[in-house]
Amino acid sequence: MNYSNIFHEIYNELQNIEDPGQVADYIPELAHVEPNQFGVHLTTINGEHSAFGDSEKRFSIQSIAKVFSFVLAYSRVKSNIWERMDLEPAGTPFNSLVQLEYDKGIPRNPFINAGAIVVCDILVDELASPKENVLSFIRSLSKNNTINYNPIVAHSEKKSGFRNYALVNLMKSFGNIKNDIDKVMDLYFSICSIEMSCKELSESFLFLANNGVVPYSGERILSPSRTKRTNALMQTCGFYDEAGQFTFKVGLPGKSGVGGGIVAVHPEKYSIAVWSPRLNKKGNSYKGMLFLEEFTTKTKLSIF
Amino acid sequence: MNYSNIFHEIYNELQNIEDPGQVADYIPELAHVEPNQFGVHLTTINGEHSAFGDSEKRFSIQSIAKVFSFVLAYSRVKSNIWERMDLEPAGTPFNSLVQLEYDKGIPRNPFINAGAIVVCDILVDELASPKENVLSFIRSLSKNNTINYNPIVAHSEKKSGFRNYALVNLMKSFGNIKNDIDKVMDLYFSICSIEMSCKELSESFLFLANNGVVPYSGERILSPSRTKRTNALMQTCGFYDEAGQFTFKVGLPGKSGVGGGIVAVHPEKYSIAVWSPRLNKKGNSYKGMLFLEEFTTKTKLSIF
Amino acid sequence: MNYSNIFHEIYNELQNIEDPGQVADYIPELAHVEPNQFGVHLTTINGEHSAFGDSEKRFSIQSIAKVFSFVLAYSRVKSNIWERMDLEPAGTPFNSLVQLEYDKGIPRNPFINAGAIVVCDILVDELASPKENVLSFIRSLSKNNTINYNPIVAHSEKKSGFRNYALVNLMKSFGNIKNDIDKVMDLYFSICSIEMSCKELSESFLFLANNGVVPYSGERILSPSRTKRTNALMQTCGFYDEAGQFTFKVGLPGKSGVGGGIVAVHPEKYSIAVWSPRLNKKGNSYKGMLFLEEFTTKTKLSIF
Amino acid sequence: MNYSNIFHEIYNELQNIEDPGQVADYIPELAHVEPNQFGVHLTTINGEHSAFGDSEKRFSIQSIAKVFSFVLAYSRVKSNIWERMDLEPAGTPFNSLVQLEYDKGIPRNPFINAGAIVVCDILVDELASPKENVLSFIRSLSKNNTINYNPIVAHSEKKSGFRNYALVNLMKSFGNIKNDIDKVMDLYFSICSIEMSCKELSESFLFLANNGVVPYSGERILSPSRTKRTNALMQTCGFYDEAGQFTFKVGLPGKSGVGGGIVAVHPEKYSIAVWSPRLNKKGNSYKGMLFLEEFTTKTKLSIF
Repeated sequence: MNYSNIFHEIYNELQNIEDPGQVADYIPELAHVEPNQFGVHLTTINGEHSAFGDSEKRFSIQSIAKVFSFVLAYSRVKSNIWERMDLEPAGTPFNSLVQLEYDKGIPRNPFINAGAIVVCDILVDELASPKENVLSFIRSLSKNNTINYNPIVAHSEKKSGFRNYALVNLMKSFGNIKNDIDKVMDLYFSICSIEMSCKELSESFLFLANNGVVPYSGERILSPSRTKRTNALMQTCGFYDEAGQFTFKVGLPGKSGVGGGIVAVHPEKYSIAVWSPRLNKKGNSYKGMLFLEEFTTKTKLSIF
Repeated sequence: MNYSNIFHEIYNELQNIEDPGQVADYIPELAHVEPNQFGVHLTTINGEHSAFGDSEKRFSIQSIAKVFSFVLAYSRVKSNIWERMDLEPAGTPFNSLVQLEYDKGIPRNPFINAGAIVVCDILVDELASPKENVLSFIRSLSKNNTINYNPIVAHSEKKSGFRNYALVNLMKSFGNIKNDIDKVMDLYFSICSIEMSCKELSESFLFLANNGVVPYSGERILSPSRTKRTNALMQTCGFYDEAGQFTFKVGLPGKSGVGGGIVAVHPEKYSIAVWSPRLNKKGNSYKGMLFLEEFTTKTKLSIF
Repeated sequence: MNYSNIFHEIYNELQNIEDPGQVADYIPELAHVEPNQFGVHLTTINGEHSAFGDSEKRFSIQSIAKVFSFVLAYSRVKSNIWERMDLEPAGTPFNSLVQLEYDKGIPRNPFINAGAIVVCDILVDELASPKENVLSFIRSLSKNNTINYNPIVAHSEKKSGFRNYALVNLMKSFGNIKNDIDKVMDLYFSICSIEMSCKELSESFLFLANNGVVPYSGERILSPSRTKRTNALMQTCGFYDEAGQFTFKVGLPGKSGVGGGIVAVHPEKYSIAVWSPRLNKKGNSYKGMLFLEEFTTKTKLSIF
Repeated sequence: MNYSNIFHEIYNELQNIEDPGQVADYIPELAHVEPNQFGVHLTTINGEHSAFGDSEKRFSIQSIAKVFSFVLAYSRVKSNIWERMDLEPAGTPFNSLVQLEYDKGIPRNPFINAGAIVVCDILVDELASPKENVLSFIRSLSKNNTINYNPIVAHSEKKSGFRNYALVNLMKSFGNIKNDIDKVMDLYFSICSIEMSCKELSESFLFLANNGVVPYSGERILSPSRTKRTNALMQTCGFYDEAGQFTFKVGLPGKSGVGGGIVAVHPEKYSIAVWSPRLNKKGNSYKGMLFLEEFTTKTKLSIF
């Protein structure tokens, strides 16, 4: 099925809704993005594509990258990573630090910042050249060798990332960071700076809709069981403090980033990426959330 | 398909695992339950049944009842119930009171105690005879007129429910409880005291697997959209502080109670109820959780 | 020394400052107080009196009464009351419930609401007729038999005291309330409703400036050591979240109430009570705080 | 009066009490201190001295140094330092990070770590050579030019001070740290590493007992009013989560450090320093606290 007509239709409906969202402005590189860009790209496990708008324009994927680093750690690491982080939703952002304090440095899940930092600490231990290896992994998922870090974004994030440094220091005080903080944070900020298009994101998440196998290459990334579990984790923890809202309204596992991107997966069917830079108050793309809600409503494709 | 053989197989496997769980003991009526009982019942939307063990023995459904009261409020109330509660997972139990304080008396979701108390407050407003109406609703879902409250359990809960009284008073101080506290809590404790068997629970949850329609009667309880949303809510909020674990390991929306019961729903397929009174440290049935994990692994039936 | 001239002088200065304070309005009886009343009364341990303004008009002493109930418990109880409450300052009001949760039902000190409720629970255990006995105690301290509870205020407090009921229920859930909640809260709300004038308050606190002995009668209320400790407790815990401010600016141990009264004690010198109903944002008398700051500055009488 | 006999007497009594305290062991330099050392030194504003035990042996003054840096900032800075920190007691250590989060990066007082770090940030702004200037200030207070930083201790503190780095980064994320974090923390850790004896501490705190004037030189450090306020601040905030206990049992303003030192001040009388390296569970010298409690009890010298 080609969904482009439905994309067009929903897009037109959304045009009539005023977008109260604000582009992320904590670093200049995000603040200066043209706010009215919009793109969507869907890839089915059978290789069909549907696209609309700025679907091939790259943007800063930010926290969406946490899925890549988590999957890489989950697929490579033999030790029990769940001793170093939990897999429960996090509650309000307000709680991030107190939760970490209360739980003695164990983050609630791998998709909040604290958890993604622990994942980076694990990758620094496990990989020969962490930055190169993570990049190769993403490139191979999307069969695209031009995907890259944006070192200017990484540098800006680092210069203003005091709260993330508060998190990593607090975790280190509890012994849950093994490596040098600078090395870990260098990897963390680099991963957040990766730039991809909706098309590339949709393609590189497709293995999660295909029981863990990359359709175009046949390469197995995760076992079927671990694939389901990764999807389950995105469902409960993929949207900061809006995981419940997204599950309730969209009904698909997914992950968002402050660059305005959202990727969602319908197991055994497709992967879809949408991008619109203006964010709602919870830090998720305002129009992206609405678009996906309308999409699963119109197509009656929700997992519930 | 008849799943009884699989039930038997999994049950035998679990026999070899020591059950470290403890029966709930905060009231004598729960403490004195024979701890080694075990039952499971699955009903498909086509009316097929599979059962094993004590599947027709009634037990105290406790928090599972929160789904019934929520569905009744969600189906009847015209006002926006989401102004009075959120639909996000709650974080650690530790946070229940501070979260309520921080969010000015708005509970995180309708399935934690604070949220279920607000649902009762809504039902006291909306229903002519709240206790009778809730009971009729559950009886009609399971076509069984002998289902009933256990007034001795309700009384015991009330006498020892100081933490619940702390919650309702805190919410009332913020203006989020409209009615007399005693009236609201009487309904709340009554609902928790309802006794049902795995068979009855499985049948009465079946409309949630059937797009909102009770299969045997054709009665519509919720619209397809609201049915999906109720399932989504169970997925993210149905297991206290183990919603992530359950989603990760079982991969079905569901709801548990401290009586040792768990109900889970596979949309467009079946509803399954399992019962084993010993609880893990998070207050969910130890064996029930393991059983459902094994069941979705063996049958490869998870929504993810 | 007669301080009336200094009182007059400070009062005139304060007239030029706009009072941004608001009268407590959570119950009608407090809301309807004429807001511009002002009184002050100082009594030295040698029996000298200085007064100004509405110093003989009675008002609702509210939390100031917590000193009386604490002293009565401290002087009568043989068991270790410090096993049931701590004696540390409480931090922000926001924390009251989480602190109680974190500390398993043990209040931070006897002057926050939770601690004063535990004191009432102790008095219910210890005294034959708690309400009568507390009243007799206060009457004997001030040699005035007309001091009394205001049952209308007590009733209003009770009807709107949901947060206090949240506290007592939470403590009872931890086993730190022994008696029936209604009996404890009846005593608690009654004590808060007592009405006294600045003159009466100043006289009845005088034993705290006199090593524990009531000057006019020679009756010993507390040992010298316990008297010092009670003063120390008022210093660190007597002003909600403004104990630091008051210590910093005034430099005397004291206790405030939302009726607008403040009593402060200069050991071995005097006791002073001031009353002005408009409260600052922390719930302490705006003008009362300023007055005492000016008074200790001008007289150079601070304990530090 | 010469208190040496009383010192001797109390010391003998304390010998019969088993000391359950533990020497601070988070850095080797503190862990390796001989734990049974004990010293005390009292200096009156008239220049009389009383001493006992290891009173002239230097030890790591740690948090006691926060009084020196605060006084220096308070005496030099024209801007309102209270816009950048509060002056209220802090509540439990558990709350340090959540409080900072809740209060948007404003520490509760200048004597908790977060507040002392803000003081260092202010000094970095105000002083030409912060480290040299702070040292000169302390040397001039104690007329002793050999007092110095211990760079090995400072280095160890820095290497293991992850929680302090969490605090400074969190405050910087709220804009409450103006300077480079490394510069601020270098000053902070240096100040904590200063080594002084009981004699030197007692002498250098004497201006706080003398209305702000150093007795031996006549130099005014603080105005009388600011002196009183500094003492008041030590009273409510000088002992981590034991300020209430210390006020209750000792009844003097003071400041403790994890090196096992405690200094206390009796306004218009004397300053006393005691040292015993074993700490109680709250991080204050076990024997030091007991010694001062006995001392004020026996001498009946408490400010209350």
